[in-house]
Amino acid sequence: MTRPTAIRRLNAADPQFARHLDHLLSWESVSDEAVNQRVLDIIAAVRERGDEALVEFTKRFDGLDVARMADLILPRERLELALTRISPEQRQALESAAARVRSYHEKQKQDSWRYTEADGTVLGQQVMPLDRAGLYVPGGKASYPSSVLMNAIPAKVAGVAEVVMVVPTPRGEVNELVLAAAAIAGVDRVFTLGGAQAVAALAYGTQSVPQVDKIVGPGNIYVATAKRHVFGQVGIDMIAGPSEILVVCDGQTDPDWIAMDLFSQAEHDEDAQSILVSPDAAFLDRVAASIDRLLPTLERAEIIRTSLEARGALIQVADLEQAITVANRIAPEHLELSVAEPEQWLPRIRHAGAIFLGRYTAEALGDYCAGPNHVLPTSGTARFSSPLGVYDFQKRSSIIFCSAEGASALGHTASVLARGESLTAHARSAEYRIKD
Amino acid sequence: MTRPTAIRRLNAADPQFARHLDHLLSWESVSDEAVNQRVLDIIAAVRERGDEALVEFTKRFDGLDVARMADLILPRERLELALTRISPEQRQALESAAARVRSYHEKQKQDSWRYTEADGTVLGQQVMPLDRAGLYVPGGKASYPSSVLMNAIPAKVAGVAEVVMVVPTPRGEVNELVLAAAAIAGVDRVFTLGGAQAVAALAYGTQSVPQVDKIVGPGNIYVATAKRHVFGQVGIDMIAGPSEILVVCDGQTDPDWIAMDLFSQAEHDEDAQSILVSPDAAFLDRVAASIDRLLPTLERAEIIRTSLEARGALIQVADLEQAITVANRIAPEHLELSVAEPEQWLPRIRHAGAIFLGRYTAEALGDYCAGPNHVLPTSGTARFSSPLGVYDFQKRSSIIFCSAEGASALGHTASVLARGESLTAHARSAEYRIKD
Repeated sequence: MTRPTAIRRLNAADPQFARHLDHLLSWESVSDEAVNQRVLDIIAAVRERGDEALVEFTKRFDGLDVARMADLILPRERLELALTRISPEQRQALESAAARVRSYHEKQKQDSWRYTEADGTVLGQQVMPLDRAGLYVPGGKASYPSSVLMNAIPAKVAGVAEVVMVVPTPRGEVNELVLAAAAIAGVDRVFTLGGAQAVAALAYGTQSVPQVDKIVGPGNIYVATAKRHVFGQVGIDMIAGPSEILVVCDGQTDPDWIAMDLFSQAEHDEDAQSILVSPDAAFLDRVAASIDRLLPTLERAEIIRTSLEARGALIQVADLEQAITVANRIAPEHLELSVAEPEQWLPRIRHAGAIFLGRYTAEALGDYCAGPNHVLPTSGTARFSSPLGVYDFQKRSSIIFCSAEGASALGHTASVLARGESLTAHARSAEYRIKD
Repeated sequence: MTRPTAIRRLNAADPQFARHLDHLLSWESVSDEAVNQRVLDIIAAVRERGDEALVEFTKRFDGLDVARMADLILPRERLELALTRISPEQRQALESAAARVRSYHEKQKQDSWRYTEADGTVLGQQVMPLDRAGLYVPGGKASYPSSVLMNAIPAKVAGVAEVVMVVPTPRGEVNELVLAAAAIAGVDRVFTLGGAQAVAALAYGTQSVPQVDKIVGPGNIYVATAKRHVFGQVGIDMIAGPSEILVVCDGQTDPDWIAMDLFSQAEHDEDAQSILVSPDAAFLDRVAASIDRLLPTLERAEIIRTSLEARGALIQVADLEQAITVANRIAPEHLELSVAEPEQWLPRIRHAGAIFLGRYTAEALGDYCAGPNHVLPTSGTARFSSPLGVYDFQKRSSIIFCSAEGASALGHTASVLARGESLTAHARSAEYRIKD
């Protein structure tokens, strides 16, 4: 445990830098054929046999001794009970985090709009919440109460009438903090189900589990594969890859702070990725020294070491300008700008899930309680996707209400274009509305 | 051609109605194993051999006699040339439609926002356009200039710097209207590529084709399968099913108009779905008579007849109240409310891609030029998804900038929650920021 951590050093001045960076970032999650086939079989069984299949799979995979579906339902009172089983300090922390998350997300809510044209034609967009959302919460070690808040609160803020949570309880282990978070977030129903069978139940519904419109929340490879398969039948959030942080530092932050920020990402799992970019080579050395000194003091030292050695890097750049270029290439899930006057760089950041500005803004604050969501696009998908938000639980319908005059004018244009596409029924339907 | 159209009649009063409706709506698009494997092979070849593979596949699949990649690039001047090759009336119609589509979509544009808390902590959301979008346009019969407008304009309104279009030209057939629409919509680059190879090129980039951040646009089963496979590497829009319309009519609209509105959907292809719901049984009879009388006069009569007989329906309900319940169960792509005072029903519509209000608002007007997008959620996915819009080409980054005081307060909460999750590096990272 005391050997130095062999964390990769890269230099942007190296002619091979782009290639090395590509290699560092390369990640493809592959569901192998065996996983795929098992998941398809599970989905088929749940669609066919409903509750019966759920009970059977839960006995087999979660080692639960249950006889009927009723044993897999947690009533609302059980969630309330959990609130009394956690410490008052924990309850206070969950409630304070929930309040801040709710307050931030309320600003994301989108409203319907419309406008009327000169001829009386009305155009607009009606925004509505989804009817029902499903929230997958992993069991065991990756069972995070903070994720319950981050997934359920945006749905409730959007106005989703019913939020249904599934959480496996392998060998009967119940996480009281998770249930307490569900109570605080306003989760409506909880089933102690997990794996592909839980995803299938939410997507298609069974006698007891209601069909939802969208499934969100993290899970293992079976859950991710099942979500991919049911996509289209229901909506899904992103398929998350390993978590990552990119810290850009000007060399003036306490190196222990930066080391700990890198650790906080690396402790998630061996595939997590922590990268530091700085124009100050001596600072990179100081952070490396902090890493070596602090690592042995951490509970998850082995996971962190594996992660840092496999996927971490300390990258030297010419200046902060170049650091930002590297950041945009990486499109990181979490970007810490641990620099003086971080705001000046903000308009230049093109791709990042969440941006943490200044030396005080540790990623961990955002993970739990700053307000923004901690479900963020990973593996460079910040190029085209966004944090989980209220907008993920709202949907839009276009509104078109033509006046007689408006329809007549539009009818001419539509007729020409429809005939250009050889769609003559379209043309004639439009032409009926043209005034003589 | 003159036998009556055997369009299904359903009655919501029938105890079996729910089951019949489920059956009517059932649709699952399946990519069979052979298609899947061919697509995976094509993607692998394009990733490995780039342009060379593109030239090879295009020769083989599109029957094009091309020697090198340069032969598959259409310069901007070629698009401008197309504007002179279409009729002035067509150009005028395209420009008028584009202006209306642009004007509507500008209202969808989302702005960055932020707020400052009492202790100086700043929270917000930075909204940015994607860097580059790819637009797939089918070749041959399904090559629609209106789709070019509907896919490219939202991207340009969002501020996407480069819109790259791919369109196959089987046996060298070029659709001048499609190129003209591309010129008007501001498409930046065009490659005459199609199929899974075009999708792979956009997703991974080749020597000539730039990698994009998101791929939108309709395509055949190979294109849809390829989009599903590259999802994650790039963003994609929805995987569209067959197009559908649901017309709700109070019995007071000219039955010929309604028949033609149903035809306009059915003429797309044999799998398209046209459904009419009315409380007026005699009106359903009148529409059936209009269908029989008008059908033989249509260019695509065979397609329409097949579609109506396989997937169409005339549904009798007790009242408009019940019609709206049926509409919400169907969650149609297109919903026409051909009734008196349609506005009163609007707040009750929970799921629909686009809502056409009043007797004058034919779906065809919305397909071409009313302003809203014609790329809409199909097969009931309006339960959880929205029309294609500017928001599909924008993405968000969360902004967190803690003051020293703010970080200290948040540090306490984060520390408690992180320790509850056994993530002690998270806890210690937060604790560093707590003031003594």
